[in-house]
Amino acid sequence: MAAEMAEQPDVLGRLLDRRRSTVRGLRRALPTRPVGVALVARGSSDNAAVYGRYLLGMATGRPVALAAPSLVTLYGVDPRVDGWLAVAVSQSGRTPEIVDVARRMTAGGAHVVAVTNDDTSPLATVSHSVIHLDAGRERAVPATKTFTAQLLCMALIADAVGGVPWDTDDWDRVPHAVADVLDDTTAVDRAAAGLDDAPGLLVTARGLLLATALEAALKLKECAGLIAQGYSMADLRHGPIAIVERDFPVIVLSSRGATASDAADLVDELRDRGARLIEIGQRDAADIGVPPVAEGLMPVVSAVRGQQLALAAARRRGLDPDSPEGLSKITPTR
Amino acid sequence: MAAEMAEQPDVLGRLLDRRRSTVRGLRRALPTRPVGVALVARGSSDNAAVYGRYLLGMATGRPVALAAPSLVTLYGVDPRVDGWLAVAVSQSGRTPEIVDVARRMTAGGAHVVAVTNDDTSPLATVSHSVIHLDAGRERAVPATKTFTAQLLCMALIADAVGGVPWDTDDWDRVPHAVADVLDDTTAVDRAAAGLDDAPGLLVTARGLLLATALEAALKLKECAGLIAQGYSMADLRHGPIAIVERDFPVIVLSSRGATASDAADLVDELRDRGARLIEIGQRDAADIGVPPVAEGLMPVVSAVRGQQLALAAARRRGLDPDSPEGLSKITPTR
Repeated sequence: MAAEMAEQPDVLGRLLDRRRSTVRGLRRALPTRPVGVALVARGSSDNAAVYGRYLLGMATGRPVALAAPSLVTLYGVDPRVDGWLAVAVSQSGRTPEIVDVARRMTAGGAHVVAVTNDDTSPLATVSHSVIHLDAGRERAVPATKTFTAQLLCMALIADAVGGVPWDTDDWDRVPHAVADVLDDTTAVDRAAAGLDDAPGLLVTARGLLLATALEAALKLKECAGLIAQGYSMADLRHGPIAIVERDFPVIVLSSRGATASDAADLVDELRDRGARLIEIGQRDAADIGVPPVAEGLMPVVSAVRGQQLALAAARRRGLDPDSPEGLSKITPTR
Repeated sequence: MAAEMAEQPDVLGRLLDRRRSTVRGLRRALPTRPVGVALVARGSSDNAAVYGRYLLGMATGRPVALAAPSLVTLYGVDPRVDGWLAVAVSQSGRTPEIVDVARRMTAGGAHVVAVTNDDTSPLATVSHSVIHLDAGRERAVPATKTFTAQLLCMALIADAVGGVPWDTDDWDRVPHAVADVLDDTTAVDRAAAGLDDAPGLLVTARGLLLATALEAALKLKECAGLIAQGYSMADLRHGPIAIVERDFPVIVLSSRGATASDAADLVDELRDRGARLIEIGQRDAADIGVPPVAEGLMPVVSAVRGQQLALAAARRRGLDPDSPEGLSKITPTR
């Protein structure tokens, strides 16, 4: 896992080297104004899809659906998706239900884009367009380099169907920012030590960063066995905040921009409840810093902080993060 | 909370008394073939929306989007939703962001249906159609009677836009089944005792019952302060199952029908990991029984089991479930 995390600047750099040609190819292939947008994924890929939900919602103005695979695979619903864009995300390209849903979306009229690390996989074969992550083989069960690569692919698709709210320089800054994050683990190690006696913990963010909060919570569960839950800040206030007692750890992901004041308010509220806060972000008050990047690309860079925290917490517990008990690289859900 | 739970057979019965006229009214008002379907909600209402996501997906063949309110309220996206059906769900009809998003969906061309317990609320005012829950005032912070009423409203909307996979008799059976559930708390009380020392717990289901699993987890957090997480069975297998160690409590919601074999497989897998299982459903092996109702209506009846469990767990902890610390009846998220 650590070795694959370290490959991320290279993997992201390679994706960015072919950014223009990828976006050009997608623009030629995709419907210019998709009637609707659906995302199909599970696990870490589903968290990458959550980032896509926001970026593609911004790019198209359409409410973006995270498809419920069981509607197709168990209830036998025929998707009616003529003129829709469907994005199916799977590292292996071999999760049976994801391949099934992609195939049925194709039959239902959607243009299906596969985002996968194997461009000869069944998922790539049934899809109209493929973005190959080209991340090299991922051996550790917890997805790291393929997750951040998937995030970047979501941004490429958004760019193709309507544009993204940042510039060329911002794209190019990402691999460097990720390298800077990887070089500096002091604050992460200190924060991980603070989780030794955690009865559970929350990870929260709003908007674009929600994907990263959900993924950090998943990594903390997978790698360190911590009872970590990811929530949108707004959802947290609608009930789950009730479990936050004195000293309960809460990781807050913040960024400058549209969600900043909401994050600041929540930090105050959690402090009033006596929560043990760990803020990851660009505010001066943040416990774990993140280098400056455009707001829309913060989720990619912050995701690496979540990976580092999960890895450090796993090591402190003497766990092998590469092979969590009972998990495998391809989960055969149907 | 207990008093409001007891009102559920009456509340649901009243909704069913006007079922035909409600569905007829919706059929006249709604686009016959919506281009897309978006749901707008937070908290318990968002869990009701998850049930709608499945039923409306079945009824229309469209992938159904759970709208991300921050896209509109924080990022300023103008929804492009001409010909779409939007369903906004809010007990009070007064959560600012839900009202804002409903208004902007209307401006964007959607037909907006409000599902609310106050038919003079701002949400009702900005929407094209209103289904009034008519559940009477809800005083307890945790939503109970309004939640099951919202579920039934989702089914009414699905019936209006494409039909539901059950018959008239099945509709009419619901209030009786809920009354039967309310009359019998022996198994629930036993199960709640088993949660006294729970370090956390998972609640899992698949397909239509997912909404009920998410809501049961939310109720256990709100009322009893338990670190409860709700997951789709498929998502659980993609990572979170890693936190299930020997004696870790897992509540499984099962039903006869399309998802039954998936539930049975997961129960076996969890048993192998040594989980402390509590199965709620109709199988003979279930720890907490649910009376026979159509598969599609099971979520309504099973939801009451989740409420009972949360109430019993709260009482065992000496907590007042009506007023969880730091929560209020209207959450002013934006």
